[in-house]
Amino acid sequence: MRAKVPTAGHLNGRLAEGLALWRVILTAAMSLLFKHLRIHQIFGANTDVGKTILTTALVRASATLKNEVFYLKPISTGPIQDADDEHVLRHCGTLKDRVHADCLYRFHVPVSPHLAAQLAAGEESQKIVPDSTFINSISSYVQRCASRAGGPGHMYVETAGGVHSPTLSGTTQLECYRPLFLPTILIGDSRLGGISATISAYESLLLRGYIVDAILLFRDDYYRNSEFLTPYFAERGINVTAVDAPPPKASDLAENFTSTERYYEDLNILPVVQNLDARHEQRLVELDSMPRRSLDALWWPFVQHGLVKGEKDVTVIDSASCDFFSVYNPQTSSLESQLDGSASWWTQAFGHAHPALTLAAARASGRYGHVMFPQATHTPALQLAERLLEGPGKDWASRVFFSDDGSTGMEIALKMALRAFSVRHKLEGKERKELGVLGLRGSYHGDTIGAMDACAEEGVYTCEWHNAKGYWLDPPTISIQRGRPVIALPPALTASEGMFESTVVSDSESWVYDVAGRLKTPLAEVYRGYISRTLQGLKRARGVPRLAALVLEPLVMGAGGMIFVDPLFQRVLVDVVRERDPASPSGSWRGLPVIYDEVFVGLYRLGMQSTIPLLGATPDISVNAKILTGGLVPLAATLASDSIFRAFYSTEKAEALLHGHSYTAHALGCEVANETFKLIEKEARSKAWLAAQARWQAPDAPSTVWSFWDPQFVQAVSRLDTVAEVMALGTVLSIKVKDSQAGYVSQSAQTLLQSIRERNNGSSSSEIPQFSVHFRTLGNVAYFMTSLNTASETIRILEDKIWKALQNSG
Amino acid sequence: MRAKVPTAGHLNGRLAEGLALWRVILTAAMSLLFKHLRIHQIFGANTDVGKTILTTALVRASATLKNEVFYLKPISTGPIQDADDEHVLRHCGTLKDRVHADCLYRFHVPVSPHLAAQLAAGEESQKIVPDSTFINSISSYVQRCASRAGGPGHMYVETAGGVHSPTLSGTTQLECYRPLFLPTILIGDSRLGGISATISAYESLLLRGYIVDAILLFRDDYYRNSEFLTPYFAERGINVTAVDAPPPKASDLAENFTSTERYYEDLNILPVVQNLDARHEQRLVELDSMPRRSLDALWWPFVQHGLVKGEKDVTVIDSASCDFFSVYNPQTSSLESQLDGSASWWTQAFGHAHPALTLAAARASGRYGHVMFPQATHTPALQLAERLLEGPGKDWASRVFFSDDGSTGMEIALKMALRAFSVRHKLEGKERKELGVLGLRGSYHGDTIGAMDACAEEGVYTCEWHNAKGYWLDPPTISIQRGRPVIALPPALTASEGMFESTVVSDSESWVYDVAGRLKTPLAEVYRGYISRTLQGLKRARGVPRLAALVLEPLVMGAGGMIFVDPLFQRVLVDVVRERDPASPSGSWRGLPVIYDEVFVGLYRLGMQSTIPLLGATPDISVNAKILTGGLVPLAATLASDSIFRAFYSTEKAEALLHGHSYTAHALGCEVANETFKLIEKEARSKAWLAAQARWQAPDAPSTVWSFWDPQFVQAVSRLDTVAEVMALGTVLSIKVKDSQAGYVSQSAQTLLQSIRERNNGSSSSEIPQFSVHFRTLGNVAYFMTSLNTASETIRILEDKIWKALQNSG
Repeated sequence: MRAKVPTAGHLNGRLAEGLALWRVILTAAMSLLFKHLRIHQIFGANTDVGKTILTTALVRASATLKNEVFYLKPISTGPIQDADDEHVLRHCGTLKDRVHADCLYRFHVPVSPHLAAQLAAGEESQKIVPDSTFINSISSYVQRCASRAGGPGHMYVETAGGVHSPTLSGTTQLECYRPLFLPTILIGDSRLGGISATISAYESLLLRGYIVDAILLFRDDYYRNSEFLTPYFAERGINVTAVDAPPPKASDLAENFTSTERYYEDLNILPVVQNLDARHEQRLVELDSMPRRSLDALWWPFVQHGLVKGEKDVTVIDSASCDFFSVYNPQTSSLESQLDGSASWWTQAFGHAHPALTLAAARASGRYGHVMFPQATHTPALQLAERLLEGPGKDWASRVFFSDDGSTGMEIALKMALRAFSVRHKLEGKERKELGVLGLRGSYHGDTIGAMDACAEEGVYTCEWHNAKGYWLDPPTISIQRGRPVIALPPALTASEGMFESTVVSDSESWVYDVAGRLKTPLAEVYRGYISRTLQGLKRARGVPRLAALVLEPLVMGAGGMIFVDPLFQRVLVDVVRERDPASPSGSWRGLPVIYDEVFVGLYRLGMQSTIPLLGATPDISVNAKILTGGLVPLAATLASDSIFRAFYSTEKAEALLHGHSYTAHALGCEVANETFKLIEKEARSKAWLAAQARWQAPDAPSTVWSFWDPQFVQAVSRLDTVAEVMALGTVLSIKVKDSQAGYVSQSAQTLLQSIRERNNGSSSSEIPQFSVHFRTLGNVAYFMTSLNTASETIRILEDKIWKALQNSG
Repeated sequence: MRAKVPTAGHLNGRLAEGLALWRVILTAAMSLLFKHLRIHQIFGANTDVGKTILTTALVRASATLKNEVFYLKPISTGPIQDADDEHVLRHCGTLKDRVHADCLYRFHVPVSPHLAAQLAAGEESQKIVPDSTFINSISSYVQRCASRAGGPGHMYVETAGGVHSPTLSGTTQLECYRPLFLPTILIGDSRLGGISATISAYESLLLRGYIVDAILLFRDDYYRNSEFLTPYFAERGINVTAVDAPPPKASDLAENFTSTERYYEDLNILPVVQNLDARHEQRLVELDSMPRRSLDALWWPFVQHGLVKGEKDVTVIDSASCDFFSVYNPQTSSLESQLDGSASWWTQAFGHAHPALTLAAARASGRYGHVMFPQATHTPALQLAERLLEGPGKDWASRVFFSDDGSTGMEIALKMALRAFSVRHKLEGKERKELGVLGLRGSYHGDTIGAMDACAEEGVYTCEWHNAKGYWLDPPTISIQRGRPVIALPPALTASEGMFESTVVSDSESWVYDVAGRLKTPLAEVYRGYISRTLQGLKRARGVPRLAALVLEPLVMGAGGMIFVDPLFQRVLVDVVRERDPASPSGSWRGLPVIYDEVFVGLYRLGMQSTIPLLGATPDISVNAKILTGGLVPLAATLASDSIFRAFYSTEKAEALLHGHSYTAHALGCEVANETFKLIEKEARSKAWLAAQARWQAPDAPSTVWSFWDPQFVQAVSRLDTVAEVMALGTVLSIKVKDSQAGYVSQSAQTLLQSIRERNNGSSSSEIPQFSVHFRTLGNVAYFMTSLNTASETIRILEDKIWKALQNSG
């Protein structure tokens, strides 16, 4: 079953370390949908509720409708002589020629699957089956059936035990099957207690996003569970059908067969099958209509609708799991896997639909809903605030102000900084309105107008009320060019400091990021001189407002084009700004309030919790968002030092920070954020992290920076002729392609890498999983971003795809 | 059991219509927490998992620790001769004097509770017990026990069947018990299938926010469920304890007793009890510490921390349910009910923690997580967009642009409007930057700086970068004064139009809101003249920028002070703006793009889905948020007409609307919004709505406006000497108190109504539920806001509390 793995030269055979790549990948997302083959999985509300009997009835009814019918029981825990597939076949009588029934894996003892696995592990002939193998077996089987089915077909995949019964590997049924994302028939429990079991099982399915198309259970005239469940689920849009229970088992085999046959003949389950067909049909109609309807009703962010050619340009996302979207292909009426190469616009921490985040959201919603926040407190918000103060705010921040997204978080940061400056300098009236910020060219802080005003107006990113307020320095940048780290100095700096060379080639990336070690280098002195002279000059400059805050995106200016700034420059900038104000009160902000916008760069996006320790200079204000909620819902946090807080502290209501959104510190978002912190702590100790970190360590120069991307791959790409420069840090890979027309409107990166949007790029073998890659570009920069837990095998395949695309287009 | 209901004079005995008020109220939220009495409820993962036996073991262990122990089985479905309380008592031996055991309600047949109810309904002696009565019985019982318990005590409340087994009324156990918010012991299922049953039951509890403190189940050496469950729940922070199963039942009663006694004696369940004690202790320590920690770590929105006196000023919200917070009182170490009188900052639609919204959030999170939105689509977002276009956007809007909150939604609206104006008038460069808006004085559109710039700068609500861009007219306002609707005309208008009277007294509120009917009145002509002349004058005015958009909060300017604007004035304003531009292309915006900010006023906050039909003039852009997600998570939608959309449509990327937040159209929020729409549709046909609407109908003048507040109460309040004016519309009640110092910093409304913040205001009888009311003020305006489904009985009691407070302080 092991596939041959194609390895690109740059990977040096590391991929061949015995990893069966495609297993890992396939389990990430492989939703199965076929127009001509309607598939349902059968989950049980409990063990022994009649799954096999009711499935047999469904199979018979499907066969009656002249369909080809497939029955699959991926695991059998019953005695071999009465295996479920044999039961199904035995009771299909004359319809048998249309029915295909199969079991994958068998065990001989009537125990819970997790014990079957333990027992099996003791036998030479059986091994514990990993989830990925298990799911891939099912997927292969299903795909074979789909190709084999001539006319319309039905398939029923029967799971084992209840919805949360453990699989052989120890995960539970509904988690294990989730990548297949099959619509579900839930077999309800007709016994005493069965109402509760049925509803709870349904809720567990719902927590994993499953589509539940029907509920079936036995009629029981004493407990009458169906009488309660029918209206209960009607309200939730699901049909409940109660059917007669089978006759008691006769001891005589022949007699048993006859009475069971009679039972099946008398059951009328056809309407259920027809309803399932209707639901299947409806799902396809809905999917087919979505591109048109979306083109008609939606106005997309950052999209020029005039460039959207038509329905084929619309990505219909049916579901998502781990790092993959399940995308609908209307040509084939099927779902395809697409790698979410932008980590869903820079938000994902653990891939899509992580159960722990869903449960955290549910927990907070069930306990609080949303509760107003002024002068109130609740555990999720308070814990999150304390976590942030202990994390990115350690040793400098005293308070957390919550808001809804990075942009609002930055508006709050700016309001804090400008007020602190105004109060310190006793500014009044118009003086307060005419303040500006000091920043770096290429920065971006969000799309609300206040956040935009903190950035230079250049290029296309502007709007009517945008009024850039401040001054922005050209920063030196870092990239890998032809295999070596290069610091590129901006012309303004080289001119000002009389330098001949505009680049500094370094030995290693770890040296570049050793800010403390570089503070005494000649380059630091050059930076210091350049910044000091520039700031001195600004005092006399016309058109530059009074500067009242220093605003930085540490290390990387993201939306501005994935610009990796030399951290030494940012450190020296903060130092110079502060040193110019030796007289400020002790323990207070100095020179200018310093804002770090960590919305994109924080919380391990770049491999470190916060950029602050690396820079070695604490800010007065910082902002976190995006990864903060693990990639589920909007939430932002603005952290501030005590001296900033004091600028608003008085007994005058009017002097308070009069800012607040209705959903400030919403419990759901805060609880999800707390869960995110917990998951990150765990992930940070994982083998995958340690392995990735080890790859970036040079024996002679231990590094503080690392990446999930392979260093050899990064170097190899940087040597390609089509590539101007590359950079990787944490989850981010950035490739700047050579292009005469740079900037936001450039299409060159799109064009060059176009082929990896296609499904079968990079996989020569049919055994290799085929998936396309969704990625976004910023002009001539293509970037790729992983989650914090993306399988290294996935990243290796993605590197391979990128590598091939760049080579082929070269 | 029916309580005497205190009715204020103005209520005219309507309350006495047989409603047992306090029942309804009490069930809303009555979390039970006592320092000296540690209470746990026992839920079963299924029927017959050993709840009573394990609870008996807990009772015995608790009694051993010298505690007073209370056992309560609120419903017994077992045969009366073997009732659970008797079993408990029988097996407490020498410890019996410390144990109190009781059953509430008994049934004689071993059936599911919902059938017991049906059976009982047939008997003369038994009635179906409504949830509220049931929960109140438990609450009373518990409170009596709490007062009775001398020393430290433990209480165990055993529920019936599984977590979702129906109660007598038909709701399920965990929904019914939710208002009590007792921490939970889950009895796991040790049988085949029990792993699944236990995890699913846990997840159902989690969806209602329950605290699960322990899981107990029988040891089974064959299925060994506890071996799987122990590490599974350890990861989730919950201890699993497996204990021996009881001996098989002996037929001889005495023998049975002896073997059962021996069984209990051999069980060592003490560590579980000690762990429960530790959890209880820990919960209290956490609650006690929260005010201090919050004062140390949080920076609250719109709060002057210098005015927060100390810990007692911090509202610790332990949980919330329906319209009530459960607030911790550190003096008594207990939880108290507090009515959420601001509908959690204007967001709530159905009260807190509505299960349907939690399930919707879980469903979307489990299916998608968050998926990036540019050029993509998913069902929750598409359906929501279509719903909005069919709802508030009907007949005018063509597209929906999603963002994160009302403020970002308005920034987008402004960017749209200004661009459309710029493009139409071919403005370039600086001309584009110097545009302004036309609006009304007192308006508010959010806290980001762009949204602030669309409002006049007056009073305290401003900040450093706030730069009001536009012109704002003084609008005529509406209020009830001394029992009659009054239109107050602003001095600017009376002066301009040479009017002697500054108020117009109307006959009825329904007349005031009959905009179409009033269009031909002389007052409409006055408005028309005033607006036309003002706009004419603005052309020559200095300091007024070129006006490029008309921005209105229809009907009510909320944050500006609950200013009810005369809708006729807003209608005439839109008409005049459009009539001044007869030459615009047909089907396109005319004069100025018109923005309606419906963030606060939309989606039935004022009793109507949208304010647009009432005004009779469609906007070109509108914004919805707040109620949009039923009060759970942030989400906003900006709707736009096709002619606005076209202003951005080209083949140039740079001309697109370059705005987008990372979590744009997040699936969780969209799905919750869709569920909100469904719930509203259902609610709008409810008896409560029809009854409230009927109360506002005058026989001679059918009204288009109505309120959940009682019209007689509103009138009565308006006649009080302390009250300047009152107004009610939909869920909103606004009371402006007489005060020489008006404006945002005024404390008069706070002071006047202070007493309703106290718990026992308004209830003279000890049988009446005591709850305090959380409300917020805007200067000298106190406002109260209900959800869309607040029980009318709750509103009547709140009216009573307000009435008494105003009278006593008068």
